[in-house]
Amino acid sequence: MQDVQRKHGPSGLVATAMAELRAAPLLALLVFVPVVILTDIAAPDAHTLLFILSVLAIIPLAALLSRATEAVSARTGDAVGGLLNATLGNLTELVISLAALQAGQYLLVKASIAGAIVTNTLFMLGGSFLLGGLKHHLQEFNRVSARFQASLLFLATVALFVPSLVSRADQGAEMVQALSLGLAVILIAVYAMGMLFSLKTHRELFASVGEAEEHHGGWGMSTSIIILVVVTLFVALISEVFVGSVQAAAEKMGMTPAFVGFIVVALVGAAAEMTAAFSAARANRLDLSVSIALGSASQIALFVAPVLVILSYVIGPEPMSLQFWPGAVAMMFLAMLAAALLSNGGRGAWYVGVLALAVYAIFGLTLFLLPPAAS
Amino acid sequence: MQDVQRKHGPSGLVATAMAELRAAPLLALLVFVPVVILTDIAAPDAHTLLFILSVLAIIPLAALLSRATEAVSARTGDAVGGLLNATLGNLTELVISLAALQAGQYLLVKASIAGAIVTNTLFMLGGSFLLGGLKHHLQEFNRVSARFQASLLFLATVALFVPSLVSRADQGAEMVQALSLGLAVILIAVYAMGMLFSLKTHRELFASVGEAEEHHGGWGMSTSIIILVVVTLFVALISEVFVGSVQAAAEKMGMTPAFVGFIVVALVGAAAEMTAAFSAARANRLDLSVSIALGSASQIALFVAPVLVILSYVIGPEPMSLQFWPGAVAMMFLAMLAAALLSNGGRGAWYVGVLALAVYAIFGLTLFLLPPAAS
Amino acid sequence: MQDVQRKHGPSGLVATAMAELRAAPLLALLVFVPVVILTDIAAPDAHTLLFILSVLAIIPLAALLSRATEAVSARTGDAVGGLLNATLGNLTELVISLAALQAGQYLLVKASIAGAIVTNTLFMLGGSFLLGGLKHHLQEFNRVSARFQASLLFLATVALFVPSLVSRADQGAEMVQALSLGLAVILIAVYAMGMLFSLKTHRELFASVGEAEEHHGGWGMSTSIIILVVVTLFVALISEVFVGSVQAAAEKMGMTPAFVGFIVVALVGAAAEMTAAFSAARANRLDLSVSIALGSASQIALFVAPVLVILSYVIGPEPMSLQFWPGAVAMMFLAMLAAALLSNGGRGAWYVGVLALAVYAIFGLTLFLLPPAAS
Repeated sequence: MQDVQRKHGPSGLVATAMAELRAAPLLALLVFVPVVILTDIAAPDAHTLLFILSVLAIIPLAALLSRATEAVSARTGDAVGGLLNATLGNLTELVISLAALQAGQYLLVKASIAGAIVTNTLFMLGGSFLLGGLKHHLQEFNRVSARFQASLLFLATVALFVPSLVSRADQGAEMVQALSLGLAVILIAVYAMGMLFSLKTHRELFASVGEAEEHHGGWGMSTSIIILVVVTLFVALISEVFVGSVQAAAEKMGMTPAFVGFIVVALVGAAAEMTAAFSAARANRLDLSVSIALGSASQIALFVAPVLVILSYVIGPEPMSLQFWPGAVAMMFLAMLAAALLSNGGRGAWYVGVLALAVYAIFGLTLFLLPPAAS
Repeated sequence: MQDVQRKHGPSGLVATAMAELRAAPLLALLVFVPVVILTDIAAPDAHTLLFILSVLAIIPLAALLSRATEAVSARTGDAVGGLLNATLGNLTELVISLAALQAGQYLLVKASIAGAIVTNTLFMLGGSFLLGGLKHHLQEFNRVSARFQASLLFLATVALFVPSLVSRADQGAEMVQALSLGLAVILIAVYAMGMLFSLKTHRELFASVGEAEEHHGGWGMSTSIIILVVVTLFVALISEVFVGSVQAAAEKMGMTPAFVGFIVVALVGAAAEMTAAFSAARANRLDLSVSIALGSASQIALFVAPVLVILSYVIGPEPMSLQFWPGAVAMMFLAMLAAALLSNGGRGAWYVGVLALAVYAIFGLTLFLLPPAAS
Repeated sequence: MQDVQRKHGPSGLVATAMAELRAAPLLALLVFVPVVILTDIAAPDAHTLLFILSVLAIIPLAALLSRATEAVSARTGDAVGGLLNATLGNLTELVISLAALQAGQYLLVKASIAGAIVTNTLFMLGGSFLLGGLKHHLQEFNRVSARFQASLLFLATVALFVPSLVSRADQGAEMVQALSLGLAVILIAVYAMGMLFSLKTHRELFASVGEAEEHHGGWGMSTSIIILVVVTLFVALISEVFVGSVQAAAEKMGMTPAFVGFIVVALVGAAAEMTAAFSAARANRLDLSVSIALGSASQIALFVAPVLVILSYVIGPEPMSLQFWPGAVAMMFLAMLAAALLSNGGRGAWYVGVLALAVYAIFGLTLFLLPPAAS
């Protein structure tokens, strides 16, 4: 490992990549990165093919991105590291959403935000409980941390609920837009104060039992930063292909746009964190799984979503509001309630996971059967 | 008792019945069983009379059914016994609903499902807290078990909420039906896994403090099974009279159909469990009361309701959906929240019961005042 | 202090008032009491001026009222004192609402009821957590008491939700009125039983850690009663000016009626309790803060609101219902959920306050931007 760290620059990068590939076969999917780019040039209308290829290419890139972020965080000390992790942790979702934002596909952006919150809260949390519970009879985790994240999610649900509530009264779009901007500012401010609270003033409350820092990669600082930048560019490139093909492909494959945005995009965007959360649960570190799953959900709700609203003024064709389809708001609210109920006891078992996954399955089934007009 | 157990067959059955009657005066109501049948032949249009007589006849039959189920369960060992109790525990509700299903009275079926969930969650739980609390200052109960049942109820609420959510978007009935069938399968699967969890893999979590198995009846195995079969047939017979007379009778007595289905049918169907739950609370075994009340509610939501959806394809005039009147969904949701809030502390007192009963009274009052068109 | 207590009658009253003024500079605002009355005679159409002056005059009167109530309570023993505090604790809100009721301004009455519940639950509770948390790292409080108040609020939310639910089905106003009267009776009965529970049968559960009775005023019994009566009359007088000017003033100041009723009236009415709750939190007696904030909210929901419904039959131009604007019901429900979630842990920290205040800010922003037609 020390050997790898000493080599910097392009040649060290290649060596690192090779070592990684041997350790993590998932990275073999990186071969799809050039394939997507070439296919997009050769056959820009092969939507279904491009969709499948871009999904396959984003997964390993997301894994690399997630590792590079963690490596940088690990080397910058707790406070800055936590800050980095808390802002770059959902870089994949952010980049995909930015591509959709630029293309003016606001329905897809919103579906993927709501979907990411629901998927992380139910599928990632439920999967961690189930996989951890199948190996370990009962698993304890830090209730304070789970309650903190659930409270953040509650606040976000309120913020995303209010514009839908108001719009029922047939308000003008202008007022909803002003409200959305105000909500975005409140959410970001609360998120920033939440970092101050959990990383600085009250960090001792968030200590998990037996947390040993993970050692994946052990990349050097400059290697990590180069990977971060290069991979982000690739994700951006492929996200454009993905966003361009997803709707046409979905139609051909018989999936509703709501299902694609909510389930497919969300699962692709969260693939990397999911791997981490599941393997932590298997290693009896459910604390880490819960904090990855709920932390990721609240980060998207309180940071990614408001940042997209603000950025829409700069890069989108028109400002984006925080007004969601009422069904999506209801699902986020129920997912938040499920997380609060299931994590309230501070103990995990396989059946807790089954319950969370069943709620997710109900949502997925509903979205799958929903006619396109409704979403 | 041993004497009774030795006599099997018809003569033993009579002796058992006589002994039971002396011990439990409620069984004197059994005299109404032949009265209903004769009245139905003599005056099939005396709806109000038939309604009252059938209610009076179902109550003792439900009590017998409940005892026979428990007697069989007690003799078959824990796992099989728990399984039997968990599937036959709401046999009365199931048989009444089947009679309504066959008659195509889907509104009544749905009202009685929703009503049974709300009645068990609020009235049975609240009554247990109140009656137990008037005798004992503070009563402890197993929070894990209460939380488990509340989580099951939460899942069921989500499943029953989703079709109403979707139908607001003016979807075709076909899609709602496909969704309902899928939800039914998910609910039954989760219920089956819940039994595996609570009866097998994690049964130690559900042990209650000072639980001594009850000794009612002490019927022999064959006696119990004969009673089970014979009484079920009688319940089926009388349920048909009940279902045939309930709407006309309700109209004459000035009750709305919603009130009849939600409150009257639910109270009749749950009479037997209610007696058991209340007397357990008086005997300072609040654990048992909570598990009867919430267990019965979640059994109806996760087992009886989906089974009825599936059976509607076989015996009903047309398939039944899981789409409920939005008001009923709201009441189930609020009842579930109330159960989660009130049982969260793991301690019972009389005022906790008052709160649950007050929520039930609010629902009852609303349904009583609701004009027929709204439900 | 003993010196002050010995002097009764008018001269003692003046001396007391002077001593108070020196101790609490807030009382200097009392100078606005005659100013309002004179201005109302001189320029009854200067709505904006009258609005501002009446707000400034009500604040010190509310503080006096609150102190007098506590002084009487302190001298009458625990049970009667608790009863007095529980019925007169929100006298200011009651008197303001009565003035609005008499003027037939039912929208303002309802907005101020909903606003008082939300303001006490979120702003007063959140402010206490924040101010207490900035001084003390972690603060413990009695979870039983917080859970009790949250349960009362839950019941009230259900009661206020049901008429809106029913009215969606296009019911006649007559039915909503009958339902409201029934709900009012249920709420008052539950509130009365709650006092029996918390002040008598189970009072030991509500003991707070280190609660030393406060010593403000130390007024004698007769002084307190005279102050109570005189100040109530003044509040009534000025409330009429307030109610008469608030709508016109709000329009001129660019505030929506919903914002005025929900936020401005609620903050004015609760100013006195707020001072008490905040200073208790600073003195590390978060127990007292939580019980003032949530107790005040549940008192308005379960006592003030139903009393206003019943009184509307006597003094209003027509009976008032409990049917609220759906948005107000949603906000009360979310405020109740927030209180339950945030007080569940039994520990306070500054960030818990930030979360509650952020939810309040979201509601305030929404109401501020809401066009007048929607509320």
